[in-house]
Amino acid sequence: MANEKADLLKITKRDEDYSRWYLDIVDRAKLAEESGIRGCMVIRPEGFAIWEKMQQVLDGMFKATGHTNAYFPLFIPVSYFSKEAKHVSGFAKECAVVTHHRLQATDSGEIVVDPEAELAEPLVVRPTSETIIWSTYRKWIQSYRDLPILLNQWVNVCRWELRTRPFLRTTEFLWQEGHTAHATFEEAEIEAKQMLEVYKTFVEDYLAIPVFAGKKTENEKFPGAEYTYTIETMTQDKRAIQVATSHHLGTTFSQAFDVKYLSPEGTLEYPFATSWGITTRLIGTLIMVHSDDQGFVCPPRIAPLQVIGVPIFRKDAEKDQVLARFQELQTEFQTSGSFSFKIDARENLSPGFKFNDWELKGIPLRLEIGPRDLKQGKAVLVRRDTGEKLIVEQSELLTKIPSLLEEIHRNLFAKAQEFQHQNTYTVSNYEEFKEGIENQAGFYLAYFDGTPEDEDKIKEDTKATGRCIPLNQTDEEGECFYTGRKTKRQVIFARAY
Amino acid sequence: MANEKADLLKITKRDEDYSRWYLDIVDRAKLAEESGIRGCMVIRPEGFAIWEKMQQVLDGMFKATGHTNAYFPLFIPVSYFSKEAKHVSGFAKECAVVTHHRLQATDSGEIVVDPEAELAEPLVVRPTSETIIWSTYRKWIQSYRDLPILLNQWVNVCRWELRTRPFLRTTEFLWQEGHTAHATFEEAEIEAKQMLEVYKTFVEDYLAIPVFAGKKTENEKFPGAEYTYTIETMTQDKRAIQVATSHHLGTTFSQAFDVKYLSPEGTLEYPFATSWGITTRLIGTLIMVHSDDQGFVCPPRIAPLQVIGVPIFRKDAEKDQVLARFQELQTEFQTSGSFSFKIDARENLSPGFKFNDWELKGIPLRLEIGPRDLKQGKAVLVRRDTGEKLIVEQSELLTKIPSLLEEIHRNLFAKAQEFQHQNTYTVSNYEEFKEGIENQAGFYLAYFDGTPEDEDKIKEDTKATGRCIPLNQTDEEGECFYTGRKTKRQVIFARAY
Repeated sequence: MANEKADLLKITKRDEDYSRWYLDIVDRAKLAEESGIRGCMVIRPEGFAIWEKMQQVLDGMFKATGHTNAYFPLFIPVSYFSKEAKHVSGFAKECAVVTHHRLQATDSGEIVVDPEAELAEPLVVRPTSETIIWSTYRKWIQSYRDLPILLNQWVNVCRWELRTRPFLRTTEFLWQEGHTAHATFEEAEIEAKQMLEVYKTFVEDYLAIPVFAGKKTENEKFPGAEYTYTIETMTQDKRAIQVATSHHLGTTFSQAFDVKYLSPEGTLEYPFATSWGITTRLIGTLIMVHSDDQGFVCPPRIAPLQVIGVPIFRKDAEKDQVLARFQELQTEFQTSGSFSFKIDARENLSPGFKFNDWELKGIPLRLEIGPRDLKQGKAVLVRRDTGEKLIVEQSELLTKIPSLLEEIHRNLFAKAQEFQHQNTYTVSNYEEFKEGIENQAGFYLAYFDGTPEDEDKIKEDTKATGRCIPLNQTDEEGECFYTGRKTKRQVIFARAY
Repeated sequence: MANEKADLLKITKRDEDYSRWYLDIVDRAKLAEESGIRGCMVIRPEGFAIWEKMQQVLDGMFKATGHTNAYFPLFIPVSYFSKEAKHVSGFAKECAVVTHHRLQATDSGEIVVDPEAELAEPLVVRPTSETIIWSTYRKWIQSYRDLPILLNQWVNVCRWELRTRPFLRTTEFLWQEGHTAHATFEEAEIEAKQMLEVYKTFVEDYLAIPVFAGKKTENEKFPGAEYTYTIETMTQDKRAIQVATSHHLGTTFSQAFDVKYLSPEGTLEYPFATSWGITTRLIGTLIMVHSDDQGFVCPPRIAPLQVIGVPIFRKDAEKDQVLARFQELQTEFQTSGSFSFKIDARENLSPGFKFNDWELKGIPLRLEIGPRDLKQGKAVLVRRDTGEKLIVEQSELLTKIPSLLEEIHRNLFAKAQEFQHQNTYTVSNYEEFKEGIENQAGFYLAYFDGTPEDEDKIKEDTKATGRCIPLNQTDEEGECFYTGRKTKRQVIFARAY
């Protein structure tokens, strides 16, 4: 029981230490843990089940928009990165480099790298796959008939990180990367925007996370891109977190890898590229947006387990009756229900312990039935998001549970959206902004037409960066909060993860 | 049209050059291709769709037997391998070693490894994950209550290979690896055997591949295992190919990583381990077992696309009518059908070209409808496995197609099984075996109780290895074909991929 008691220890509260709170949730909800290998995490079954569900939904959305999956190699020769200067400075710097292909045992039995087995050319463990994929597309694209190519892959990638935090920033992480090739700039534009919409729909409709959609500023865009679309949301400590990006890559990679197609008019043209990705970071975002001081809060539509049944009893005779009723309900739910359900039949644990345990793990709804409920045909439903208890007829459960799950989804979304609105400010000059962000964390919307150097200066002054240039801007002109020049462009600035 | 004509070029025939035939199929059915990175392949969308379907079915079977998925790091410190001597000699020799974490640009703009960024301890790109997983289980296992642990992961792995062949032997490949921990030897035994059964059911019921199930001989078992279960099948050039393995690892890894659990009796015990895996090699096996001189043959239950519709017409008016009918059928199939279907509406390609193209790609059934069929309410179905043409009523298609797909599955299985039986021989002495295998490739069943050294000698003499000790041996005694000693153990010997 020692371990079980330890599980009941309170987690750090958000307003005491937000970072510690985040780590406590990851650890206590058993989502992930340190691996002992610097910067690499173990994604535990509870965490991985969420990623699997995300994959399943997103993969369906990708296929519905005409994409198919493929697999490209993990290793990329160093020389591939040299072909695109901006890309290499953005990605190839901090990476895992394979230099040898053999180990050997020393006389003392130690295992060391065999100096004889050095590779002629070092290989980089992919930080992203534009280079290897466009070197392959060169073989696949000859004519306009070969376009578009609409591919995606679900893989692991590696970016060497000095300061890491589970899910949010790790040396190795999992993601999907879509890579498409198109005949025209406009087609690539439509694709990049479509995939941003797919991501927005997914995170709003499944993760209950409201986002700002927009373009990245020059400083924040993908190295080598024409421009980058992004969706951004707000954590509970009022910082920005990037949720997904979709890049219009122009002809950067077709030129670097000399990919050309024969147009219907008989001319040779460079095709246009997009790439777009979402990562296991999303699980960290999920925690940051919805969880509370009791533990993880998993939005119902993405929760691997939506309803947990906790039998209440004191005597053995009661136990048998209550469990039998739960078994009946389970069969009924499996046959006619639209939600996932499990019974917590663990022995020697009190209901109170179980309540805490499942709250900590973020299960959206708890179903309790005890001996008295049994007699009256009643059941108790407890919402994870509000803690609210509802006493309902057992005969209503099949309809009541799905509608409650939907209500929880709507409530989580509305709460996060309200929070985001309350902490988004409009500022008209730099002094106001500096004072604002120093005293009150949040999103700051401002007219801005500064240069990348201006952005650098703002970051230096305030630690805030341009998070996005929201789409659907009004046509109204205003004064740039930094340069004072007239501009129509508004930008959200915030401190970010 | 130049590319289209090239596609029609005949592939090498099996009896001309079996290896070339295999490579032609991989290439022309667009399953995979060389990546330009030595030993690494690109799995193309057509090939990856098969892997996706394999994953989907197997993952369901793993979950139905109580397993869940997780994710462990790609990088394993060299020192982890040193902890288990047999394991290191089996796996850590030829591997990809990460030694640095940064690149830099030289004055001439070349990108090179930054010598300042050498890792304190080199990292191995996982060849298999027993070591990293058992170093994690150490934190998870304290009491008998923590057992069993039943985990699996779907990941990429890397084993440095000098001679590679797409799917069958590549430096990087995809697989799943199950890793379980149990309180007793017997429970681990039940698990290892159960997973062998899962694999056998999967390959027989979905891939139509008949297998021999058995144990590996001492020489062929997994480095560090108590014993290894295997399923093996026969390629069309009558060699053996390993389909999947399931290992009873005993306490090898719990001892190496000092994992102990407190038993109900209060004693500290080492838990028992299993591991089991199946890889993208399976796609190569699929080709080797079923395909023919016309191209790839994909067994219907694993085929991403099961039926291809080819409209037949000459005039434009005919075209519209025939296509309209195909559209109607597609809607009907989507609503009420149990199979996948696509219309090949490509312009400017003759029916003959399309027939060849889909035969090459291995689609199990072709549905043709032309203007005359339209008038008569008829359709033509062509089987990929036999080439047989059937004229059927269009009104029958919804029932006829599923039953034909089942018949194709049964036929492919029966044909492969018949081939396997015809080429399996029983031998009673070594001379007979040597002469047999030299003149007639195949499986050779023999009584054998030789030592690992005897196995080495047999391999040296004949290039054949002990493939498996079939399960359910009779209790009859015979004379070892190599030593002449009395034994009850029969072993299948063959040359293998």
